[in-house]
Amino acid sequence: MFIAAVITARAQWPGPHSRIESDSIRSEILKDYRTFTVYLPAGFDDDKGSTYPVLYLLHGIMGTDKGWFNDQRAGEVMDQLVASGEACPMIIVSPNAGGNIFEGAWNGYFNMPGWNYEDFFFTEFVPYIEKKYRCGGSKGRRAIAGLSMGGGGTTVYAQHHPDMFCAAYPISALMDIPAVGAMGGQQPEGKMALLNKSVTENSCINFVNNADDNTKEALKSIKWYVDCGDDDFLLDRNIEFMQAMRRAGIPMQFRVRDGGHTNEYWHTALFTALPFVSRCFNDK
Amino acid sequence: MFIAAVITARAQWPGPHSRIESDSIRSEILKDYRTFTVYLPAGFDDDKGSTYPVLYLLHGIMGTDKGWFNDQRAGEVMDQLVASGEACPMIIVSPNAGGNIFEGAWNGYFNMPGWNYEDFFFTEFVPYIEKKYRCGGSKGRRAIAGLSMGGGGTTVYAQHHPDMFCAAYPISALMDIPAVGAMGGQQPEGKMALLNKSVTENSCINFVNNADDNTKEALKSIKWYVDCGDDDFLLDRNIEFMQAMRRAGIPMQFRVRDGGHTNEYWHTALFTALPFVSRCFNDK
Amino acid sequence: MFIAAVITARAQWPGPHSRIESDSIRSEILKDYRTFTVYLPAGFDDDKGSTYPVLYLLHGIMGTDKGWFNDQRAGEVMDQLVASGEACPMIIVSPNAGGNIFEGAWNGYFNMPGWNYEDFFFTEFVPYIEKKYRCGGSKGRRAIAGLSMGGGGTTVYAQHHPDMFCAAYPISALMDIPAVGAMGGQQPEGKMALLNKSVTENSCINFVNNADDNTKEALKSIKWYVDCGDDDFLLDRNIEFMQAMRRAGIPMQFRVRDGGHTNEYWHTALFTALPFVSRCFNDK
Amino acid sequence: MFIAAVITARAQWPGPHSRIESDSIRSEILKDYRTFTVYLPAGFDDDKGSTYPVLYLLHGIMGTDKGWFNDQRAGEVMDQLVASGEACPMIIVSPNAGGNIFEGAWNGYFNMPGWNYEDFFFTEFVPYIEKKYRCGGSKGRRAIAGLSMGGGGTTVYAQHHPDMFCAAYPISALMDIPAVGAMGGQQPEGKMALLNKSVTENSCINFVNNADDNTKEALKSIKWYVDCGDDDFLLDRNIEFMQAMRRAGIPMQFRVRDGGHTNEYWHTALFTALPFVSRCFNDK
Repeated sequence: MFIAAVITARAQWPGPHSRIESDSIRSEILKDYRTFTVYLPAGFDDDKGSTYPVLYLLHGIMGTDKGWFNDQRAGEVMDQLVASGEACPMIIVSPNAGGNIFEGAWNGYFNMPGWNYEDFFFTEFVPYIEKKYRCGGSKGRRAIAGLSMGGGGTTVYAQHHPDMFCAAYPISALMDIPAVGAMGGQQPEGKMALLNKSVTENSCINFVNNADDNTKEALKSIKWYVDCGDDDFLLDRNIEFMQAMRRAGIPMQFRVRDGGHTNEYWHTALFTALPFVSRCFNDK
Repeated sequence: MFIAAVITARAQWPGPHSRIESDSIRSEILKDYRTFTVYLPAGFDDDKGSTYPVLYLLHGIMGTDKGWFNDQRAGEVMDQLVASGEACPMIIVSPNAGGNIFEGAWNGYFNMPGWNYEDFFFTEFVPYIEKKYRCGGSKGRRAIAGLSMGGGGTTVYAQHHPDMFCAAYPISALMDIPAVGAMGGQQPEGKMALLNKSVTENSCINFVNNADDNTKEALKSIKWYVDCGDDDFLLDRNIEFMQAMRRAGIPMQFRVRDGGHTNEYWHTALFTALPFVSRCFNDK
Repeated sequence: MFIAAVITARAQWPGPHSRIESDSIRSEILKDYRTFTVYLPAGFDDDKGSTYPVLYLLHGIMGTDKGWFNDQRAGEVMDQLVASGEACPMIIVSPNAGGNIFEGAWNGYFNMPGWNYEDFFFTEFVPYIEKKYRCGGSKGRRAIAGLSMGGGGTTVYAQHHPDMFCAAYPISALMDIPAVGAMGGQQPEGKMALLNKSVTENSCINFVNNADDNTKEALKSIKWYVDCGDDDFLLDRNIEFMQAMRRAGIPMQFRVRDGGHTNEYWHTALFTALPFVSRCFNDK
Repeated sequence: MFIAAVITARAQWPGPHSRIESDSIRSEILKDYRTFTVYLPAGFDDDKGSTYPVLYLLHGIMGTDKGWFNDQRAGEVMDQLVASGEACPMIIVSPNAGGNIFEGAWNGYFNMPGWNYEDFFFTEFVPYIEKKYRCGGSKGRRAIAGLSMGGGGTTVYAQHHPDMFCAAYPISALMDIPAVGAMGGQQPEGKMALLNKSVTENSCINFVNNADDNTKEALKSIKWYVDCGDDDFLLDRNIEFMQAMRRAGIPMQFRVRDGGHTNEYWHTALFTALPFVSRCFNDK
């Protein structure tokens, strides 16, 4: 029957499928379990000897590890781009750096007193993921991308660990606290104040402005692509980052597309981001 | 605080917002209530004197009136395209032509014994919507689009009522039963058999092939745009429709993009479909 | 024969064609003849009663009135976009503001001692063109666009005459002298020095920064679209213009695409610019 | 001075440039000199030890080896795509298969009595180019693309020599004589009749329909991408080719974009074709 054909068209697709699964990891540093979500390309389960490059994909503030897959549909975009050859098969993994900060939970990618998330990411999360999912293992097989607060995390992680990633793709990134948000002060002692402080201390712009020659050379070993909408309230900070990078002589792609700080902008960014990191992987 | 700024960035956007709401209509023809979902552009509630063009947007088999808004995100795409000027403010409405046919519910856009949906659409639904939402009212202010079974509905409705729509935009359309689905016969008396039969009887291709000169002239008064993925199992039927239209001398845009019969294909189609119908409206 | 079919495919295209022609106008202000090149849409010659919107398209330094048509292929792009409905039929005209300044010729769109080009443009050229080619006649039927020095001319002409244009589309625009070019001084008395001085005096950025409320309101009556490549040496000046416009509360589209100060960037800009001005024309 | 900065912006670009040069080769098979044009990527002259993948890019009927570079601007597109990382550095070479057939010259990519061009291409041209320009040398480092008659040449060359190319990208291709051109007969003995006959004998469609299992397997070792405009008079032949390939189980990308048999269509095809072949090269 035609109808059955339509309904089952996708399920009947010949050959193996990609799949998305969520799991959790026990962190000694954070003294807690942290969830994560991972995209496994078609064929992952069939050939246990195959290994993959890996993209760490960071969500925004108040997001979770499921955001890129539910709200920005990274899995569907990836399937299409792999089918057409524009992206290579890879593992995509989103850690959960969030929690409802208004209800007292920790939030953020940076180290702060009581929440050493950056330490967790590099000493616990990355080794765990790369072993469990047969991926990464070297700079040429790792990339990082993220949106908003996760775009700031993307940039800072690449700045702090240039030997770890061959490509960094911050989208609508929180490169520093924007002027419009610098009102602060209501909660000088709370977790939100710590988060604000951590963003200022980890200013992506200041990092480049203060970089010495060795650091600049290290940053040149990463392929950079910065993308921010023309209606985004973070645009000026992204412009300042681009200008700092240019002054420092570090090559970088820069794009301003139509749009604001929206799910739609981040969804469409995937069509450029996934091919870009695929091209950057140099030990597929 | 920055964090509050990020979280509330969208809610604080100055000026009025678009909104999406679901409602239902009592049909005397179908002897039942039918739900529908409607997109109302920013400003709709503020100026009660303003009127709008309207796009009827038809879902696929087993879909509902919420599909285009939940799965293909028509609201978010529309907001962005209106902001950039690529689409004009309009009412977008999806009727519910579905129900779980496997559980005995009716399904489909065409008239069949016991389910005169096409009659319902033109004599009950359209007048109700255009009065309630201050829209449409003439050919130059009405367009129709849809995916899969709704792409067939789009084409047939425009063929049967060329005086009603200035533009028709079928996507991944069921122009006729595809060869791969012509197995039929298991349920010769059931609703599924009636649906299959109605699709064959309403072949979009045969309609063009059999059109007389007056009908051809009427079809030329509609702007046509047919879009189908290169991996879609319905591609050949769309090609046959294009070739029939060309033989009949009826101008038509035709595109084959990358992809299959997927949500992602239909989502990205909106970026072309909404500007297209906006350009076709000639009495905004 | 197939071969004849291929070779003559374009020439045999049914119906009327667009055409491009060059002519000249005697200027009393400039005391000279000035050439110009004009695109006339298909059908222009057939219906003498039809009138058209008009796009003034300005070339860059050392360019001529033929540049947009020979180097950026505005005619071919226009034909394709009209065929698909993305652009409306319009007159496109490029005046010649150039001459080899190294060999002593005048150059530039602004008034300077001995070369009152802006006066020529508005009091002689526009009236002549709009009468001769049955176009323009009101703000809603006039747009302006240009590249590099012509992007500066676009912006300044719209700033000085906001009642004249409904849309302004500067591309890779010379919004002010860039830092890298502020070396000057070698020819303090020559035409090149006068040109540099005229650009500084006509800074698009300062104009917005110094605008009073009435001027800001007037600038809001124009639809603005600013487009500049991420590798363009003029990017920072375009950013400063965008920021000045935002501070002044004047809506503006802003895009940074991939590329530098190249013919290829300007060619591809046409695919967005021509639909944009078509949408802005409000009295077609 | 600013002006000097603008004028020399491109010339001053730091580092090496790509360049395009034309030359000729003496053919014993054709008993004549044949010209060709080649794009050499930036850095080609600096490192004499470096080798490159190669793209053979075939012109259309009545074209020459200079067409892709003058009319479709392959050099400018290539420079931009290499700068952004979307295409890898490669040698691009166009042979001259043309001559004014109306004035008695030979024309075409296939063997015909007195003009064994396919033999020339594989036994004389390819070895000469790959030695002189340090490129190719294996299937994984060779791709082929072309427009119209050159799209037919692309397909046939890949069909006859599947061990030679990793990717084939026919654009607006002459897959067989179209119905509209099957008038023939006026010049039964001339070169034009021979050319028509050679196209029919080398039907790309029949080749696939008649392929045995070994041939099908060989064709699967090539990455195929077929692109043809919705207004192209050759569209139906491209559709037939796609359908034949699908029946034969040979994967293929297929796209129908907006446009006809025009320079503009072929120019914009380069933005997809050059990244595609770059991804296909597997021994860069």
